[in-house]
Amino acid sequence: MIDFPNLADIVDVTPSKIVMLVVDGLGGAPHPETGLSELETANLPNLDRLAKESSGGRTVPVLPGIAPGSGPGHLALFGYDPLKYFIGRGVLEALGIDAPLGDGDVAARGNFCTVDGAGLLTDRRAGRIPTADSRPLCEMLATISVPGTELSVLPAQDHRFVLIMRGAGLSDNLSGTDPQRIGAAPLPITALAPDAVGAADAANGFVSQAREMLSNRERANMLLLRGFSQLPSFPPMGAAYRLNPAAIAAYPMYRGLARVVGMEVVPTGTTFDDELDTLEAHYGEHDFFYIHYKPADAAGEDGDFEAKVRALEELDSRIPRLVDLDPDVLIVAGDHATPAILAAHSWHPVPVLLRSRLTKGDGVAAFHERACAAGSMGTFSATHLMLLALSHSGKLTKYGP
Amino acid sequence: MIDFPNLADIVDVTPSKIVMLVVDGLGGAPHPETGLSELETANLPNLDRLAKESSGGRTVPVLPGIAPGSGPGHLALFGYDPLKYFIGRGVLEALGIDAPLGDGDVAARGNFCTVDGAGLLTDRRAGRIPTADSRPLCEMLATISVPGTELSVLPAQDHRFVLIMRGAGLSDNLSGTDPQRIGAAPLPITALAPDAVGAADAANGFVSQAREMLSNRERANMLLLRGFSQLPSFPPMGAAYRLNPAAIAAYPMYRGLARVVGMEVVPTGTTFDDELDTLEAHYGEHDFFYIHYKPADAAGEDGDFEAKVRALEELDSRIPRLVDLDPDVLIVAGDHATPAILAAHSWHPVPVLLRSRLTKGDGVAAFHERACAAGSMGTFSATHLMLLALSHSGKLTKYGP
Repeated sequence: MIDFPNLADIVDVTPSKIVMLVVDGLGGAPHPETGLSELETANLPNLDRLAKESSGGRTVPVLPGIAPGSGPGHLALFGYDPLKYFIGRGVLEALGIDAPLGDGDVAARGNFCTVDGAGLLTDRRAGRIPTADSRPLCEMLATISVPGTELSVLPAQDHRFVLIMRGAGLSDNLSGTDPQRIGAAPLPITALAPDAVGAADAANGFVSQAREMLSNRERANMLLLRGFSQLPSFPPMGAAYRLNPAAIAAYPMYRGLARVVGMEVVPTGTTFDDELDTLEAHYGEHDFFYIHYKPADAAGEDGDFEAKVRALEELDSRIPRLVDLDPDVLIVAGDHATPAILAAHSWHPVPVLLRSRLTKGDGVAAFHERACAAGSMGTFSATHLMLLALSHSGKLTKYGP
Repeated sequence: MIDFPNLADIVDVTPSKIVMLVVDGLGGAPHPETGLSELETANLPNLDRLAKESSGGRTVPVLPGIAPGSGPGHLALFGYDPLKYFIGRGVLEALGIDAPLGDGDVAARGNFCTVDGAGLLTDRRAGRIPTADSRPLCEMLATISVPGTELSVLPAQDHRFVLIMRGAGLSDNLSGTDPQRIGAAPLPITALAPDAVGAADAANGFVSQAREMLSNRERANMLLLRGFSQLPSFPPMGAAYRLNPAAIAAYPMYRGLARVVGMEVVPTGTTFDDELDTLEAHYGEHDFFYIHYKPADAAGEDGDFEAKVRALEELDSRIPRLVDLDPDVLIVAGDHATPAILAAHSWHPVPVLLRSRLTKGDGVAAFHERACAAGSMGTFSATHLMLLALSHSGKLTKYGP
């Protein structure tokens, strides 16, 4: 947990409320033609006004230069050092499709691939076949049985699926099968520790039956598995911060992440407006809310600068609903940057603003990368954002005499 | 000690001199009406001139969001990670009244309280009785004797006192007696480790006799003890930095803190002018001086914005005496912020300036939070300030080939 030993000892439980809006992929980078980032290009009257009443700064999700996935990016914002706390790829993929994942279950990220007659990879993604094509393949593979282990094969997007193995004493200490290059054969799964021999046998049994079943197809005639992992057991953030935290997220993966850190997930709909309705309806029940906004990241990942600008402007139009709730601390943060010019997550520090009765603005006139770099919170580790949230809401007492 | 292994290996002993002025509670926060902090409001011609010749920056005492006590705040400035090095409340209180505290002695912070007929707390501070009332009570309690342990009961300010237990093999692994709420009974002292059973018996023996002695009073008819602690054994900063450090402080607690890190404490008077006289008189005898200015913190703790402004202006008028000594490195730093609007220590980064022959000003036109945020030293951990002091004074050689 947060790199402050026994933090709970200096936390006061108070009625004050913290709302942390996480804008997925918030940060960006300058467009080569205009020299302006997505945030600088967008028309954001509400966020700019909020910035003027807030302390500004920038968060470093992991370390300078490190582009995080959604898991590490979110864990850092909640105060979990992403170099110490890790959620495996299989688990994250399972959380992303709301798969029922129990303690001890082993999840793997799977994808269909294409091999030639000699069994060598010709396409690691089977031409990115659509979900409509992979779904019946998953249903077929779900009929496979191996002794002593229950198997589920659940379709994800396009050529991806999730394999879940359930059984007594399974271990996730398993190597993946993806050789990461064309022309090589998929690798056998090996046990990386003695306690994983049973799980390796089960997984290899599954792969060998799947190869049979898929073999007479032209493409998607084989599969690859990686990221074997079990649900981790993290210290719950409610106890660490003496909070009663709630998560409101339209996308399953973010609900799953919130569950991993012990938040209560409040059911909501599929849009950000639904999330805001949920926040308003349940505002009295918790003292910390994590609320997630996805479209900025999706547009950035697509490399669509204009779409990301629009996604940020859409968000901006909803900011008054958050401001009207008048939480004691309102934070707008991002789990990582997703610059459209990279069409990928990046390592850039992410703008953040924090409004409380103690912030009167610190000269940050707008909400974007350049303006926030000059803010009074400076550039700091995202793992410390929760400390600032607690102190600004009057929940933290003095450390040491 | 400083998070740089074997730092002494790259330190050169030179005749250059470092003076570190620690302004207690230096940093502040904007006044709600003017939007200006105490430093921004004060008229500080000498500090502003000094800032123009210095490098500016801001120190983070512990971590973002963490408001430190005086102990952690000072330890950080001297390069001791305040999350690793801790001085207990009892010891700090004892240092604060210049109590004779030997190695192995166990000190506790005590305060008189009021209980009802059933022994339940009605006032945890006994109406904050004045020192004049608590002094005779301490004298009475000092007559208590318990087998095998020598006891001292020394009055501190108002309802507070210090209990010192002296004896062979005492441990400070003891819980306190303050239940932290009205309506509860004071708790018995418990040994938190097997080696503390003897100390727990002695402390409980003291409390039970004290209860008898105080019981027929209307208020201040009981006492609470907490922060049982022994003088810690820290690596001395003289050896760590190859310096011959001296401390000049009018207030006992800061002399005590300096002794804990191995500084030589130079006797001085009760005012900052006395401290400056002492500095001038002993300037030839040391290569590092820590000099302490208290009134800014006191005014901040009182929530008196105007008084803090005046305390800073008073300080400013003495700055020429420091500048005239022309040390190779002159630092003006703070152990933490004490914004008058909070009437308490806070977590805000603290302005710092460092003048040496290598600094020609970096655009910091004035000495306050906003200006220093744009300074060339940036916002950095207070535990690294000593490294900057050593390097700017020509005492640090290259690390690594």
